[in-house]
Amino acid sequence: MKNSFENKFNENNKKEVVLGFGISRDFVNEVRENINSLDIKFLKDKVLSLHPADIADLFEMLGEEHRRSLASHLQDGLPAETLASLDEQVLNDVIENYKPGVLGDLLGKMDTDDAAYIIDSIEVERRDPLLKQIKSEPRKLIVQALEFPEMTAGRLMQRDYVAVPRYWTVGQVIDYLRGSAKVPDKFYSIFVVDPRHSPVGTVPLYTMMRSKRDIVLEKIMTDDPILVPVNMDQEDIAYLFEQYDLTSAPVVNSQNRLIGMITVDDVVEVIQEEAEEDMLKLAGVSGDTDLYLAAWQTARGRFPWLFVNLFTAVLASITIGIFEGTIKQIVALAILMPIVASMGGNAGTQTLTVAVRALATRELNASNALNVFGKEILVGVYNGVIFAVIVGLLAAFWFGERGLGIVIALAMLFNLFVAGLFGAAIPILLHRFKVDPAVGASVLLTTVTDVVGFFAFLGLAYIMLVN
Amino acid sequence: MKNSFENKFNENNKKEVVLGFGISRDFVNEVRENINSLDIKFLKDKVLSLHPADIADLFEMLGEEHRRSLASHLQDGLPAETLASLDEQVLNDVIENYKPGVLGDLLGKMDTDDAAYIIDSIEVERRDPLLKQIKSEPRKLIVQALEFPEMTAGRLMQRDYVAVPRYWTVGQVIDYLRGSAKVPDKFYSIFVVDPRHSPVGTVPLYTMMRSKRDIVLEKIMTDDPILVPVNMDQEDIAYLFEQYDLTSAPVVNSQNRLIGMITVDDVVEVIQEEAEEDMLKLAGVSGDTDLYLAAWQTARGRFPWLFVNLFTAVLASITIGIFEGTIKQIVALAILMPIVASMGGNAGTQTLTVAVRALATRELNASNALNVFGKEILVGVYNGVIFAVIVGLLAAFWFGERGLGIVIALAMLFNLFVAGLFGAAIPILLHRFKVDPAVGASVLLTTVTDVVGFFAFLGLAYIMLVN
Repeated sequence: MKNSFENKFNENNKKEVVLGFGISRDFVNEVRENINSLDIKFLKDKVLSLHPADIADLFEMLGEEHRRSLASHLQDGLPAETLASLDEQVLNDVIENYKPGVLGDLLGKMDTDDAAYIIDSIEVERRDPLLKQIKSEPRKLIVQALEFPEMTAGRLMQRDYVAVPRYWTVGQVIDYLRGSAKVPDKFYSIFVVDPRHSPVGTVPLYTMMRSKRDIVLEKIMTDDPILVPVNMDQEDIAYLFEQYDLTSAPVVNSQNRLIGMITVDDVVEVIQEEAEEDMLKLAGVSGDTDLYLAAWQTARGRFPWLFVNLFTAVLASITIGIFEGTIKQIVALAILMPIVASMGGNAGTQTLTVAVRALATRELNASNALNVFGKEILVGVYNGVIFAVIVGLLAAFWFGERGLGIVIALAMLFNLFVAGLFGAAIPILLHRFKVDPAVGASVLLTTVTDVVGFFAFLGLAYIMLVN
Repeated sequence: MKNSFENKFNENNKKEVVLGFGISRDFVNEVRENINSLDIKFLKDKVLSLHPADIADLFEMLGEEHRRSLASHLQDGLPAETLASLDEQVLNDVIENYKPGVLGDLLGKMDTDDAAYIIDSIEVERRDPLLKQIKSEPRKLIVQALEFPEMTAGRLMQRDYVAVPRYWTVGQVIDYLRGSAKVPDKFYSIFVVDPRHSPVGTVPLYTMMRSKRDIVLEKIMTDDPILVPVNMDQEDIAYLFEQYDLTSAPVVNSQNRLIGMITVDDVVEVIQEEAEEDMLKLAGVSGDTDLYLAAWQTARGRFPWLFVNLFTAVLASITIGIFEGTIKQIVALAILMPIVASMGGNAGTQTLTVAVRALATRELNASNALNVFGKEILVGVYNGVIFAVIVGLLAAFWFGERGLGIVIALAMLFNLFVAGLFGAAIPILLHRFKVDPAVGASVLLTTVTDVVGFFAFLGLAYIMLVN
């Protein structure tokens, strides 16, 4: 099945794949036209011959209307992998018009983790009726998976794996695999378990392939394999896979018994998501891409962050307000003041972003936090001195007043020092107090650099220039 | 060798691994003390029993002095994987005191891609002497790898793989693997090649394991496998691995002949790096984490971005300068003006970040760019209306002047509309003109939102409030 997919998929789209794209813009337009003209045969032939992951992309690129329409025509033929690859919002559109039986059947045949993702993504009121349509054995596993908290090993794992006792030989395992039906679609290691079903070793398939039939697994297994507790957070799992170059890992329950397997393809997605999440959170987007949401939903999602930023901006305004009289006397101050605040914000953001990312990858941790902190302050001072000179000269020449140049230079130096200090300290402290440093760090930082920037500049001007 | 590493490593550190950390802060301190007291036995026993990837982390956490000292004591025993996992800067510290022969031997035994990374990372003047110490056969492959541009398949691939003709049976392959010495350490698929050595299919090891000895590969192989051209960019390779859940892929030259293999563990690093790069570039850090650089190097690296931002800030100042007279009459304008610019910058950054990320993951592309663009403008208008009301009321009450409220409300609405428009347009246009949208996009955006913010607010005030 898979082979024939990839086969046809390659014939049609080889060129685009080499370019790195599964589907071209022209193809999407062609599909749109054929949805409009209801050419079902075209749709079935062309769309279903794509790779399942590319069908998912196609659905994401279509608008809501076309998406629903295409889904209702293709539902009997859509592969399970396509549904599992869809963004939550798009998934709901796609399955909205599914006939009840079709989806239940599909879910019963999928990997448990994928089925659980789908059930978890659909609207709450549709979940129970859908679960009832799934055969009892897979349903039990899906319900169990849903009981584990989101973003933990319990959700990520699949329930099928290959586990054998340590005294088996390579030949026995091969014979078992050739005969047994209940083997996962994809697996990269054999798990060796003791009589209590606790993993005691793993044998990668490439080691199996190179070993003679009469060799006992015990001799070739990796002892004390890295085990993933079922409640482990997905970020930690991603760390283990990256750090130790794993392709699969056994998942164990609190009694240390083997209950599932996590494979590298699931982890690749997690790595992608986690990095993306940090980036979006830093920019004040809630953590999931809101690309497929309707405009008003997106606007509502982004409102809270902007609202918090409004407080920051108002605080900055209040700071400026303190020096109303000073500004009235020297209007040049109003013209120059955004420079100090903006440079502080930018320098601080550089430090902040490096720190947030390094905390996430664990390159920054308790053992080097103090060094990094000290270094970032130094970086702030270095660039502070250089920009103080540049901006000082600029202001002095622009307004023909040496005093103004000195004031802005001192304010700039001080604000870049503060930017380095808080740019490093805010994420490190948030992390220590178990708050996600990507959330809130940049609001806190710009509050500091704005308020300090305006206060330092206007305050110094008041002291040095106003008589 | 590997087994005994992981074995000891787990005994010592099992608890921390479960917590997601290879090494604890206490351990790092203990190592520091033993470097100071020159307890070489402790260092060899404890440090070398860690997993190679954790030894690399340990080096990164130590300061420069301790790092060099530890490296000179351990050089004969340090595993090749440790060197390959080090950050460029740290790597140079570590190998600085290596005796010439030791490093040459190690490099000769490593995977080509890792050896090439190390040669490429060390200071230029040390490269040639080092290459001369490597045995001629691996040296040839390393030199070849170095001729491929950085961040392409040619650098990422290893030169060992398993390739067999299509008429071989499963049994023949197994016998070949059991007998042959020249097989990669790790592999996940058998590549099937035609007489010209072009890949015509792949057989995953799990399929091999389940198939009977007399089955011919042709029957079970995935036809038309996804091929990676040797000059393909690593970002595109990462996309292929993610999209099609690959664990390994054959690399071909321009004649379509098999010349290497890329495995998922290399790609996991790329995915990590690419996401990180976007995030850092958006914040104006050059793309590599500068965590391990000296302060003055870091400062120098971050200077250009700040300098460009200075232009933005000066442009904003010039805009304000146009309205010098207006501000002199109504000082409240100077107090309120940062609010409009700052809200525009934040709203625009939300849009910009979503767009940059979606372009990188190809969720945003030619076929939906127009939709996304239209939607983001709408999002800007929605939030623009809401914040116009909030800020308008705030300003009117604060300064007791209705006109001021109306002016700031209109300016806010306009600037959030502009923020949505440019937040989406800038990355999409940069991408279309083949400029990396993560670089420069945010400077361009804040230039727009600052200048428009100040101009709209002060301009409207001039028209409506000044007589």
